[in-house]
Amino acid sequence: MLPSATEVLAAAHRLRGVVERTPLVPSAALSARTGGDVFLKCEQRQRTGSFKVRGAYNALAALAPEVRSRGVVASSAGNHGLGLAWAAQRLGVCVKVFVPATAPTVKRDGIASLGAEVDASQPDYDAAHQVAEGYAREHGMAFVNPCAGDALLAGQGTVGLEILEELPSVATVVVPVGGGGLVGGIAGLLRAVAPGVRIVGVQSAKTNAMAASLAAGRRVDVPVPPTLADGLAGQIDDEGFENGRAALDDIATVTEQEIAAAIAWLSHEHDMRVEGSGAVGVAALLHDRISALATPAVVVVSGGNIDDLRWRAIVDGPGSFS
Amino acid sequence: MLPSATEVLAAAHRLRGVVERTPLVPSAALSARTGGDVFLKCEQRQRTGSFKVRGAYNALAALAPEVRSRGVVASSAGNHGLGLAWAAQRLGVCVKVFVPATAPTVKRDGIASLGAEVDASQPDYDAAHQVAEGYAREHGMAFVNPCAGDALLAGQGTVGLEILEELPSVATVVVPVGGGGLVGGIAGLLRAVAPGVRIVGVQSAKTNAMAASLAAGRRVDVPVPPTLADGLAGQIDDEGFENGRAALDDIATVTEQEIAAAIAWLSHEHDMRVEGSGAVGVAALLHDRISALATPAVVVVSGGNIDDLRWRAIVDGPGSFS
Repeated sequence: MLPSATEVLAAAHRLRGVVERTPLVPSAALSARTGGDVFLKCEQRQRTGSFKVRGAYNALAALAPEVRSRGVVASSAGNHGLGLAWAAQRLGVCVKVFVPATAPTVKRDGIASLGAEVDASQPDYDAAHQVAEGYAREHGMAFVNPCAGDALLAGQGTVGLEILEELPSVATVVVPVGGGGLVGGIAGLLRAVAPGVRIVGVQSAKTNAMAASLAAGRRVDVPVPPTLADGLAGQIDDEGFENGRAALDDIATVTEQEIAAAIAWLSHEHDMRVEGSGAVGVAALLHDRISALATPAVVVVSGGNIDDLRWRAIVDGPGSFS
Repeated sequence: MLPSATEVLAAAHRLRGVVERTPLVPSAALSARTGGDVFLKCEQRQRTGSFKVRGAYNALAALAPEVRSRGVVASSAGNHGLGLAWAAQRLGVCVKVFVPATAPTVKRDGIASLGAEVDASQPDYDAAHQVAEGYAREHGMAFVNPCAGDALLAGQGTVGLEILEELPSVATVVVPVGGGGLVGGIAGLLRAVAPGVRIVGVQSAKTNAMAASLAAGRRVDVPVPPTLADGLAGQIDDEGFENGRAALDDIATVTEQEIAAAIAWLSHEHDMRVEGSGAVGVAALLHDRISALATPAVVVVSGGNIDDLRWRAIVDGPGSFS
């Protein structure tokens, strides 16, 4: 279920002074390309490098003290773990995070450096998720899902609140989609307060669980090969599917090459360091994957945690800037 | 009924770029006097000189086009008429306002200068209200109540939203109370998002319809003699009573002398020109009318429309600065 506007507002109240109000940056180049004003909502500048800290902090804050005191467990492709570890450190909560072995080093090491216990023994996100849930059950600890739960989605929804506050005339919001937590939160706020705004999701064509499920009209499993958009990779569950169905007016997919080009473009054009998952929205605009884009449009750049070598290779690589 | 947080948020969205975000000004003198941080929310700096334009604009915007096109009718002690005339001018709506003959010239003339028709034939607010309702019925026009209606209260509630955004730790909000529209709107927002905030109303002891009704546990009529707090004078109706009961944790009253002293004090201490109705909250703090004031506290200074001669006489008068 999408969070209510009241829940998002309460989350914003809780997060004030805790997380960053990230900049909304006009993109002259994307505006020229699309013929209307386009802005980037820069969540790669958020604490821990992605929007995930918003929902993680709000979810932890919503737990009863006796639940918190037992510690919490999470599965994460990396960014949720970072956000949760950061929030847990501030709130004095113990946390154990299961990440896939394929998670970028910058995410894995970052989580550990924030004092959380990291288990990277599982091959992919879905396996990590399953093991984490089992561990939580077994130890009587709360499981903080990376893309479900009222409080978590309400926290992510504060991204939408900030967009609306700074650009009341916004006509389209383009959002990277994995499990549907970010877009679900944003949509909960926008549907209630500014129902005319079109919400468009973007995924990598390589790991398109939400797009495939929406196309099929039911939750379907997809292959999960390695992808530049590692933060969006994995299956969705029933709640994620329902959230996506309620939240999205449309969903687009982009190729791995287009994601790489967007990462390089963001570096060259805007001097922004963005991870693949965070760049899919820009990739969609750069490669005309969104039809009839109404402007002003905001593209959520959701995160910036990419390993240095990989980023350098993409940004400096031959033909990267296409 | 108090507006929901969602309605207040939608009002804020509608009002953005239309009305002012008024300053929240720290008062070193009130802070020293109360022993905790005290801020003034300066609605006398709002367009048309009071908060009323927030609710008036939102109420007009919520009317169906065919209703708007027939024009609207209002009764007003003055500030609602100003706010409504201003909003109507922007939205291209005809408006007729019934004000009491006792309304300050600055308010009466101001309404007319904004293009509204003014009827000042009634002796007091309650008579003006009755005649206005009859006029609206007779001509099939919408009546825009100065202190009732979902959309109107939601607009006033944006005052509370701005307070919460700028001072998340606020513990007490002190609000001038007439018919309960402002405090009802603010409470709708705060009860949903920050339920721990104490909401204290203030009235002139001379026209204390809400205070007397709350004390009696039912709506009671009170005498309405001339008062410096002309904007708060009049009876309350059942809806106003219910809103006050839901919104207020406590209500204080101040004497006319204390109101005059507060007007003078605001001029000398803060260089602010404030009308009597707008100064009652400050009067309550200056004269210790609020017990166990938790801080940080915000005192809403609700309006500044006072006739020049009267203001000068109070500010420069002998013994005014007590």
